[in-house]
Amino acid sequence: MGYLRDAWYVAGWVDDIGDAPISVTIIDQPIVLWRADRKLVAFEDRCVHRLAPLSLGRCEGASLRCMYHGFRFGPDGIALEIPGQEVIPPSARVRAFPVVERHSWAWIWMGDPARADESLIPPAVGLDDPDWLLGRGSLDYDAEARLINDNLLDFSHLTYVHPTTLGVSASFSEERPRLVTLDRGVRFERWVLNSRGLNSKSDALLDSWSTYDFLVPGVLLMITASFPAGTASASNFERPDYARAVSGVTFTNQAVTPTGEKTASYFFSWGPHREHGDEATRAMLMGLADRAFNEDKTMIEAQQRTIDRTPNPRILPSAHDRGVTIYNSIVKRLMAQEEAD
Amino acid sequence: MGYLRDAWYVAGWVDDIGDAPISVTIIDQPIVLWRADRKLVAFEDRCVHRLAPLSLGRCEGASLRCMYHGFRFGPDGIALEIPGQEVIPPSARVRAFPVVERHSWAWIWMGDPARADESLIPPAVGLDDPDWLLGRGSLDYDAEARLINDNLLDFSHLTYVHPTTLGVSASFSEERPRLVTLDRGVRFERWVLNSRGLNSKSDALLDSWSTYDFLVPGVLLMITASFPAGTASASNFERPDYARAVSGVTFTNQAVTPTGEKTASYFFSWGPHREHGDEATRAMLMGLADRAFNEDKTMIEAQQRTIDRTPNPRILPSAHDRGVTIYNSIVKRLMAQEEAD
Amino acid sequence: MGYLRDAWYVAGWVDDIGDAPISVTIIDQPIVLWRADRKLVAFEDRCVHRLAPLSLGRCEGASLRCMYHGFRFGPDGIALEIPGQEVIPPSARVRAFPVVERHSWAWIWMGDPARADESLIPPAVGLDDPDWLLGRGSLDYDAEARLINDNLLDFSHLTYVHPTTLGVSASFSEERPRLVTLDRGVRFERWVLNSRGLNSKSDALLDSWSTYDFLVPGVLLMITASFPAGTASASNFERPDYARAVSGVTFTNQAVTPTGEKTASYFFSWGPHREHGDEATRAMLMGLADRAFNEDKTMIEAQQRTIDRTPNPRILPSAHDRGVTIYNSIVKRLMAQEEAD
Repeated sequence: MGYLRDAWYVAGWVDDIGDAPISVTIIDQPIVLWRADRKLVAFEDRCVHRLAPLSLGRCEGASLRCMYHGFRFGPDGIALEIPGQEVIPPSARVRAFPVVERHSWAWIWMGDPARADESLIPPAVGLDDPDWLLGRGSLDYDAEARLINDNLLDFSHLTYVHPTTLGVSASFSEERPRLVTLDRGVRFERWVLNSRGLNSKSDALLDSWSTYDFLVPGVLLMITASFPAGTASASNFERPDYARAVSGVTFTNQAVTPTGEKTASYFFSWGPHREHGDEATRAMLMGLADRAFNEDKTMIEAQQRTIDRTPNPRILPSAHDRGVTIYNSIVKRLMAQEEAD
Repeated sequence: MGYLRDAWYVAGWVDDIGDAPISVTIIDQPIVLWRADRKLVAFEDRCVHRLAPLSLGRCEGASLRCMYHGFRFGPDGIALEIPGQEVIPPSARVRAFPVVERHSWAWIWMGDPARADESLIPPAVGLDDPDWLLGRGSLDYDAEARLINDNLLDFSHLTYVHPTTLGVSASFSEERPRLVTLDRGVRFERWVLNSRGLNSKSDALLDSWSTYDFLVPGVLLMITASFPAGTASASNFERPDYARAVSGVTFTNQAVTPTGEKTASYFFSWGPHREHGDEATRAMLMGLADRAFNEDKTMIEAQQRTIDRTPNPRILPSAHDRGVTIYNSIVKRLMAQEEAD
Repeated sequence: MGYLRDAWYVAGWVDDIGDAPISVTIIDQPIVLWRADRKLVAFEDRCVHRLAPLSLGRCEGASLRCMYHGFRFGPDGIALEIPGQEVIPPSARVRAFPVVERHSWAWIWMGDPARADESLIPPAVGLDDPDWLLGRGSLDYDAEARLINDNLLDFSHLTYVHPTTLGVSASFSEERPRLVTLDRGVRFERWVLNSRGLNSKSDALLDSWSTYDFLVPGVLLMITASFPAGTASASNFERPDYARAVSGVTFTNQAVTPTGEKTASYFFSWGPHREHGDEATRAMLMGLADRAFNEDKTMIEAQQRTIDRTPNPRILPSAHDRGVTIYNSIVKRLMAQEEAD
């Protein structure tokens, strides 16, 4: 599968990993996530004995036992016990993957463990962040992750896929955001003038700002904020001072993880800044997310089915595809570098 | 797929195509059917931009808009608008197929548009025909269209597949109909003596006549009529004078459309002549059709599964297969001609 | 498929084969089982005419009629009638398989009929046996038969797959049974000391004996019996005198039949000796079987999915795999012999 391996992929919400092992799949690799005492461990999800899945196993303190014939493994993947025999051969071990618990997500490094660099984990905002009041969700896609990335790299679809849910005007798709190329991603910045904003309680027209970074291997981190009319031009259409925002101050984390060749997981959180909203605001935003992200899913899964039925599928890029193009060239460079390493 | 392309295929009932585009598939080709104002238009069901299906799009007067990123196309398939950019490249167009609305069906020409000859559309009877009172239905098959054609080209199956539903006697399969080879099909003619007919209210035994044409690419047009005993021999066992029929005067249209390699759609209508029946007669006949056509479907889908599990499947034709053989040789000739063109 | 063909496979319970033909599949071969008058007959499940399944056919005394176009076959597979034609060509015949009704099961020989030797049918115990009170069941597996055989050839899984259902102690998997290599299988023998047995009504600790033969092509025949403490050592840990058993005297037949490449059927019966139990005992044992055999199915189907996702799957045998290894070498020898024949 044509996905980067030297990257941290979101495997799931850490809150979902408790006393029992759970099974996830990343780039076609089945993985079992479990806690050795409290510490998160990731193994290939396959016992070395007869290939039963270890995700049907049992956590026993700092070890994981296969529940087919009882092989028991330590956190490094080395077998500690084989029922009915004394000697444990050195080949009795399973592969372990680097895994980090951070920003409420479990991140797994799919490439060479020697190159696993935690500083490459994107600076997401966790559910426990004191500044934000975030709700969380996830969706399973019957579509390749690349198509979901493409969707998140071109917000002109908001006018057509989300004509009512996300409240953008028809002219939204006419204008192009400002793009900044980052080392491992693309930054989007946009002012929308004379808008109502996401959760304003007044009728006054506002200048609404939004910016997001879309980072390898598929993580979107976005902030929105609305300001009194005139702020955009007073800011010279640059990034405003968030302290002067009057409403619509929200943050969203979104992560796309390729699971199989034609499947993906999509994890997301969204919510208001604590000074600009409460639990009702969060519930309203999560309701929007639920509707809007299912609109995306309907379109992208249909797109996937059409691609699958097309011999030699080719696209015709438009002006709005510039973000996609920049991001893809970054991924291409990183994959070449990975290959060289 | 080994199906003729230079032919008009039934895509569906025109009544089902309203304000929203609909998706059909013919010989593995996904097609979107929509109305440019009122006129029927058929496009390949795939936007030229990022391959989203146009059947998820929106009709806007005489144009169709893709609801992923907003590309908008005119009835000839040429893009009229690309949001966010001024210039529209000539490659921004989708393929259009010849489509004709006739006899209550939408007919699509799958071959070279330059050879689309409307006079080749079979002379079916529409739901609005003043002489007939027709009910309509359809079935989706998990079987290749060829097997359904085979079934319709050999009515000896009536004795075994429909032992009770269609009311034929056990001896029906012993006798062979008269066959006439047509330019693009086969004509079947048959007298059954001493029968009760389809909807007679008397106990008198009748001479029942039926004839149908089975026409390329898979359209059956059949008339039935019952007469006083003796009519068959008085007519020299030729086609009778329908004006002398006493009951059982019905007409049925049936169309088999290959959708995928192992799937097909089956469209049908049936009903009495207005002088020999009413809405109750039509309801009775549609009830028969519903039961009988599902009996066919059960058998043919099981046959398909058996064929799929058979390495090098071969058949052993019987005397009743003559209609199949003639029809297949016509199709073979037409496909050779299409290849030569 | 890598399965022995010169062997008797269990096709089903004979009680399930009545007036209507039924369809089974063995090693990817669709078969119709029907009764010519009362005698069991097995054909390939495919009419020679147009490949409709004969399992949709109709038994007519000593013949079977295809219900598509009416071909009728005698018990030897030769067509006796072709509607609409007088001459029946010699090629109008379907393949017949040797089939034997014995021990309440229908056994089909999948290899050369000339080598079908009824003495090779394993000595199972039928539901009508005067000594035993057996209940019956079956499960369909989405897993290859080989994996189910492996499971039945290594009972160390009882400790982990059935930690509560089958009442074995944690130490059960630490000890290895005695193995005896048979001509067409493996015999397992085991004493468990200080156990409660399967259905004892007293609190006394017992010596529990169990032995089973696992025979080609996948038939397990097992007897269990519990004795007063001390019996094992008094018997020199050999086979005890069953007449001195005090409880837990049960018999189970289990048969694994490969149906497709990744599917199998599993037929089983279990129950007490009539002197050591009644219908309530049988119901209790069948309740255990229902729970335990579904625990096996869950594990084995998950194992199959993991294998399917593993490029070049390899196992790491443990000491408990000795039974598997012996059985596989017997199968390998028989397959070589079949090839030579």
